[in-house]
Amino acid sequence: MRNINENTITAAVLDRMAGCEDPRLKEVMSALVRHMHDFAREVKLTEAEWAAGIEFLTATGQKCDGQRQEFILLSDTLGLSMLTVAMNHSKSAQATEATVFGPFHVPGAPRLPLGGDISGGAAGEPLFVDATVRGRDGEPVADAEVDVWEADAEGFYDVQRPALDRPQGRAVLRTDARGRLWFRGVMPVAYPIPTDGPVGAMLRATRRHPWRPAHVHFMIRAPGYQTLITHVFRAGDEYLDSDAVFGVRSSLIGNFASHVAGSAPDGSLQPGPFHTLGFDFVLEPAE
Amino acid sequence: MRNINENTITAAVLDRMAGCEDPRLKEVMSALVRHMHDFAREVKLTEAEWAAGIEFLTATGQKCDGQRQEFILLSDTLGLSMLTVAMNHSKSAQATEATVFGPFHVPGAPRLPLGGDISGGAAGEPLFVDATVRGRDGEPVADAEVDVWEADAEGFYDVQRPALDRPQGRAVLRTDARGRLWFRGVMPVAYPIPTDGPVGAMLRATRRHPWRPAHVHFMIRAPGYQTLITHVFRAGDEYLDSDAVFGVRSSLIGNFASHVAGSAPDGSLQPGPFHTLGFDFVLEPAE
Repeated sequence: MRNINENTITAAVLDRMAGCEDPRLKEVMSALVRHMHDFAREVKLTEAEWAAGIEFLTATGQKCDGQRQEFILLSDTLGLSMLTVAMNHSKSAQATEATVFGPFHVPGAPRLPLGGDISGGAAGEPLFVDATVRGRDGEPVADAEVDVWEADAEGFYDVQRPALDRPQGRAVLRTDARGRLWFRGVMPVAYPIPTDGPVGAMLRATRRHPWRPAHVHFMIRAPGYQTLITHVFRAGDEYLDSDAVFGVRSSLIGNFASHVAGSAPDGSLQPGPFHTLGFDFVLEPAE
Repeated sequence: MRNINENTITAAVLDRMAGCEDPRLKEVMSALVRHMHDFAREVKLTEAEWAAGIEFLTATGQKCDGQRQEFILLSDTLGLSMLTVAMNHSKSAQATEATVFGPFHVPGAPRLPLGGDISGGAAGEPLFVDATVRGRDGEPVADAEVDVWEADAEGFYDVQRPALDRPQGRAVLRTDARGRLWFRGVMPVAYPIPTDGPVGAMLRATRRHPWRPAHVHFMIRAPGYQTLITHVFRAGDEYLDSDAVFGVRSSLIGNFASHVAGSAPDGSLQPGPFHTLGFDFVLEPAE
């Protein structure tokens, strides 16, 4: 121990965890130490680079607050979030694919009746969503709790607008007896993830753009089924092949239809363009 | 890109950095992504574990302030700091070995003349240090700037005592024309690294103790030589073989001699026990 070197230190650190009684914690921590040390050895990390890493991680933690989660952004932009999602969801041909949760979900969003307007006054062209939630055998999932959240026409979520004193672009709804879900929102647009923090600096330094293709987030929970966390992406978006957080799946690209002024699905007369989206979600049975 | 899976996502993330013009940044970031993804795949990281990791890193960043650097503690306790030090310092037989910097150095410590008392009133049995700073060929290094810092008799650095309004246990001195350095401080004791944050929780969860063997920190800078960041450890300490941050080197264990009340090296009459330490530092020439 008193003379460990750059090659033997890894075993010394693992040995120190020998007494850990939680086998899974021991496994995860041991693998973390091995891979982190292998990384440092492979690049022969300099002390200045180590210090820059400490500074980066510290700034990333300090950028986080009740409205901002910079470590999720970091995980998302380095592909770790989507990798974790991909590993933990089976890819049965029928079930809707999962994608990244992202940093903008807020628990306790307003509960709205079916047909309600989730925009809460957010700017954007009206979007009328008509969806179904079914099980893998086609059975409707009644009374599923559906969390929906989306950015406004300028690409900002409500939590990114400090002056806002109420939720916008988010709600919790429940499917009807036939597994149907319908509501009004705003047409999503592509937006850059927040770039005023350490993650933005990392993207600039590595010459990566921060854009995400337009999408609406869904989290669907129902007893007897696995929770589905996913997005529906807007077909034709220029960032579908270069999502900054690697979240796009072909199966999640939705049919957003655009309409000129006129009669909307909710019976209202729209004075300007509006859009409609139909999407069928399929849940996996609980394990 | 729209259908990347858990095995192809790594290449997709690396490909996104293709435009990075800084070859070293690209190398380091690419290796980081590869090793991080390999870690997640090896343990098949669950979404709950991912979320716990995000929470841990966030809390670690938020524990940091002007007086506390929890990410350095994390790096230290996972052996990454000592690994980085070991890789970046040649191990010529003559030169003094380097060890971890630690989180308790403060720039701009009080400048003291040789023979001064660095304790600033900190509690502890008196320690009289008499050291030399030489080059690899034995030449004395005159006017070297020597930063010294140590904990008090209760194992706390001054920055861990919020009520303190002045530095204690730290100073900057300069060697004389013959490369000699002498000062008074307090006898160091073993101490636990701070355990009231996420790193403490990690140590408890993995059944690791937080103790470091007693030591005095030195950072020695002189034109024409590589900066030396090291400790001198107290022989006989019970934690020499299990330092929580893996910093001990046999060559850095010093000869702290203990004396009963009587005449001290500075000519003072000590009413109680005191200690002396002699140590010869050898610097590497600048590269």
